[in-house]
Amino acid sequence: MKTVHVSTSNGYDVKIGSGLLDTLGSHAVRLLPRARKVCIVSDSNVWPLYGSRAQKSLEAAGLEVVFFVFPAGEASKCGATYLKLLGFLAEHQLTRSDFIAALGGGVVGDLAGFAAATYLRGIPFIQLPTTLLAAVDSSVGGKTAIDLPQGKNLAGAFCQPSLVLCDPDLLCSLPGEIFRDGCAEVIKYGILYDRAFFAYLTEQGMDFDREAVIARCVELKRDVVVQDEFDTGLRMKLNLGHTIGHGVEAQSDFTLSHGCSVAIGTAIVARAAAAYGLCGAEVRDAILHTLKHFDLPIHTDCTAEALYKSALSDKKRSGGSVSLIIPHQIGDCVIHPMPVSEIEAFIKAGL
Amino acid sequence: MKTVHVSTSNGYDVKIGSGLLDTLGSHAVRLLPRARKVCIVSDSNVWPLYGSRAQKSLEAAGLEVVFFVFPAGEASKCGATYLKLLGFLAEHQLTRSDFIAALGGGVVGDLAGFAAATYLRGIPFIQLPTTLLAAVDSSVGGKTAIDLPQGKNLAGAFCQPSLVLCDPDLLCSLPGEIFRDGCAEVIKYGILYDRAFFAYLTEQGMDFDREAVIARCVELKRDVVVQDEFDTGLRMKLNLGHTIGHGVEAQSDFTLSHGCSVAIGTAIVARAAAAYGLCGAEVRDAILHTLKHFDLPIHTDCTAEALYKSALSDKKRSGGSVSLIIPHQIGDCVIHPMPVSEIEAFIKAGL
Repeated sequence: MKTVHVSTSNGYDVKIGSGLLDTLGSHAVRLLPRARKVCIVSDSNVWPLYGSRAQKSLEAAGLEVVFFVFPAGEASKCGATYLKLLGFLAEHQLTRSDFIAALGGGVVGDLAGFAAATYLRGIPFIQLPTTLLAAVDSSVGGKTAIDLPQGKNLAGAFCQPSLVLCDPDLLCSLPGEIFRDGCAEVIKYGILYDRAFFAYLTEQGMDFDREAVIARCVELKRDVVVQDEFDTGLRMKLNLGHTIGHGVEAQSDFTLSHGCSVAIGTAIVARAAAAYGLCGAEVRDAILHTLKHFDLPIHTDCTAEALYKSALSDKKRSGGSVSLIIPHQIGDCVIHPMPVSEIEAFIKAGL
Repeated sequence: MKTVHVSTSNGYDVKIGSGLLDTLGSHAVRLLPRARKVCIVSDSNVWPLYGSRAQKSLEAAGLEVVFFVFPAGEASKCGATYLKLLGFLAEHQLTRSDFIAALGGGVVGDLAGFAAATYLRGIPFIQLPTTLLAAVDSSVGGKTAIDLPQGKNLAGAFCQPSLVLCDPDLLCSLPGEIFRDGCAEVIKYGILYDRAFFAYLTEQGMDFDREAVIARCVELKRDVVVQDEFDTGLRMKLNLGHTIGHGVEAQSDFTLSHGCSVAIGTAIVARAAAAYGLCGAEVRDAILHTLKHFDLPIHTDCTAEALYKSALSDKKRSGGSVSLIIPHQIGDCVIHPMPVSEIEAFIKAGL
């Protein structure tokens, strides 16, 4: 087992290791000794697989367990589910000493985290990511959110979990596409911060050491997040491939997964950056090669105009310019503010 | 004009003075120079009175103004209005550099503040309280909230405004009951922290110097809040009269105002505390006398059982005991944890 400590304003541990799911209860009562009740939040895909193990572990530790299971999918990450969950917590009279256990992928973590951040103005929550994407991305950073009809993640809160238990065994039973989806995010960390890590991934492909890779991603993200807890600068780099990727995702009406959308977004940025002379052709090629090696898509049928419009409704806009993340070298990316008026041409150069 | 600086994690000023409403625009652009848009949030009572002055002031400062006006009343402080407001902000594409101006009483401040705390995970907001209660209570402390069907203020966030502009002239045009309502909260500060201030209020009655009294209340609340920003200890004292008061309010189906409910709650606590020997009869009598002097109610028809049940659904519960605030002397109150099982008898002693 590996432990990565995240020293944000409320510090917490991310533990990564086989079998951690069954230790949820003992970890929880050690960390939150005043808790009496816990609400497990999960979705209709994950709950049937791991719900009863989580529940047993918590009950064995003497906690009263209630659970809120919603239909799997991004469509559930909305205001209606959020209010329903708040009502459920109130109905079951959870107090500020009690906590939420978020068992699932990014949608579960974002929604449960936002509810935990705001129910009674904040109760503790423990995250148990069940997808690679959630393990390496949403489990560190304290960003919780719901979508609005106008766009993704438009409402939310910064809220650190009390603990993240990441059991790589849980990732095995999920469909291959969902695992591959997370790989786009894993590769992103290599491009952003760590040339050697990127080389390891390129060499291993899908067969990488899960515990080690998750731990490395968590460390890399942790190092950024502690420097920029409230996402006002450095952390922007984590958006590599995301601004355009969100556009791809929105254009597909969210039928294309987040990871695949980010892969396409990253590929577009790599090609456009090379075309603009912002990086060398070998950087572009290395990125495209590795994405392809992981069976991730690197092209889209969307027009530059459509992606541009979607990129503009992205919340990272700030007064007339959009900050794009440009790979300068593998392991060295820069924040590149670009006037809104130039974005469409940039995307076009990368299609 | 008086200025009270509140040095919470994000420090801000509360300015109190005649005519401040018309300086909103110039204050805003000085404080938030990157802002281009502002959304005024107000209700159907306040907007017709002061909306156009606020709008003019903001527009004169070069800002684009949109406004969200909802039906006045506690019933609007709900999940549905909250989601509608978030959608409105997204629809008008406010960015993280833009801000909300909350023009109204406690309901407006709580709702607008919660939206500001969570839209794009937080944008700035400026508060313009238009009731005495909002001026002395919700403008300091950073507590924002909405109600859930299960109870008041059950969801929300801690979020400090960027600025509070408190123009006492706005309080004049509101109905007398609303002003009296805030007096219950003003008297509370005297009972809690300041014997001389309490004596001044008892002497002056309703004719007190508004600027001075508001400033003093804001200072007193500020001193508590900076010591306990996230409401984990000391700040609990501000609940004097509130735990039982919320019960009174809920029992009336919110037809009784917050201030009147708190006055009754305070009176019940004073009588019960004297009956239990926790304070002298002269303390009880001073409190009852001053409340009556302000035409505030000190009795309820509710049974102890009904109030007890409502007090239990209050969010301040924490694992089997309720913290009541007991006046030991005028200006000196203590936090008194009481087992849930003893609350009903205590209330009965104070009816």
